[in-house]
Amino acid sequence: MPGEFFEAPEGTREEILAATYRTLCEHGYADLTISRIGSEFEKSPSLVYHHYEGKDELVLACLEFILDRFEARMTDGEIEDPQAALEEFLAWLLDADVEDGREQFLSTIVELRSRSSHDEAYRDHFTRSDRVFEAYLTEVLEAGIKKDVFRAHDPDRVAKMVLTLLTGVMMRRSTVERGDAWLEPVRVELDRYLAARVYVDDR
Amino acid sequence: MPGEFFEAPEGTREEILAATYRTLCEHGYADLTISRIGSEFEKSPSLVYHHYEGKDELVLACLEFILDRFEARMTDGEIEDPQAALEEFLAWLLDADVEDGREQFLSTIVELRSRSSHDEAYRDHFTRSDRVFEAYLTEVLEAGIKKDVFRAHDPDRVAKMVLTLLTGVMMRRSTVERGDAWLEPVRVELDRYLAARVYVDDR
Repeated sequence: MPGEFFEAPEGTREEILAATYRTLCEHGYADLTISRIGSEFEKSPSLVYHHYEGKDELVLACLEFILDRFEARMTDGEIEDPQAALEEFLAWLLDADVEDGREQFLSTIVELRSRSSHDEAYRDHFTRSDRVFEAYLTEVLEAGIKKDVFRAHDPDRVAKMVLTLLTGVMMRRSTVERGDAWLEPVRVELDRYLAARVYVDDR
Repeated sequence: MPGEFFEAPEGTREEILAATYRTLCEHGYADLTISRIGSEFEKSPSLVYHHYEGKDELVLACLEFILDRFEARMTDGEIEDPQAALEEFLAWLLDADVEDGREQFLSTIVELRSRSSHDEAYRDHFTRSDRVFEAYLTEVLEAGIKKDVFRAHDPDRVAKMVLTLLTGVMMRRSTVERGDAWLEPVRVELDRYLAARVYVDDR
């Protein structure tokens, strides 16, 4: 999904960020160099150096750009179908089959996120990122309560639970062997939890 | 908790691993060097080089040692009080106040685990580590079913759910600002989930 935000980059800055995104997806953080980004970039690589001082500044700008776009889309208009919105959000991390690009993007996010323990700029980004996704989930749950498709519970608390579980899903997806069959059972148990806490009908 | 496995190291190998553990807790992975480990080590630093070829070999040996000890303790004897055993397991990651050493250890584990996406040796370790903890959780749940303190559910599936949530807890703890109040709500929601799926009585 984040890839689509870069499909029609506007101006040099967005083109550089799009090239950074593609390079991150292909090579990961460890093998990311400004010259690699330069070769993904269609104009002169020296423009990258002109706009950004170093690798982390560039990566953080790319993460911020993606998060801003997510936020803009998520807060754009009323949530018409809260159940569908919740399902879509969950599926993004829980679907067993995702394209390789998304898998690679998730691994890169895990790698970048783990930098937060000793890099304040990354920590600030991921703190904001968690807040944005928690706020969106809370909004989806509140919309469902208003429309009587979800129970009146504690949307903010449920949102924190779901986001924490999804963080664990992301971490496990990118760090254990694929053969281990834990994803489907977690999906079933999450549905049990949501049936007990959120859904009005027994699904 | 892992620290206690190193309290009375037996022989040079364990002394080296204990020094590695202390250095990891203090400096994290990025700033770990063999010479730093050597200075934590009470005998000649050259002995470290004699036993281990590089930093990653040493770190992995340290992780394996801790996991082996965990496994030995967890599979040692019958589970007398399944509720207490489950509580203790959860508290280890969900307690709000933990000593700094444990917080630092958790950050280091997150950092090392994120290496798994491009390092097979780390991936193998964390795949095994997830299996060990899932097996233990399953065993605790099965013991509770036998003793009629837990409901007959799908212990293996519940174990996978709980472990995935705890993985997310670990990740969030070490990568977002401490001020964000998400931990206590997650603890409350986990109890709701366990009340719906596991506990016999309404606690």
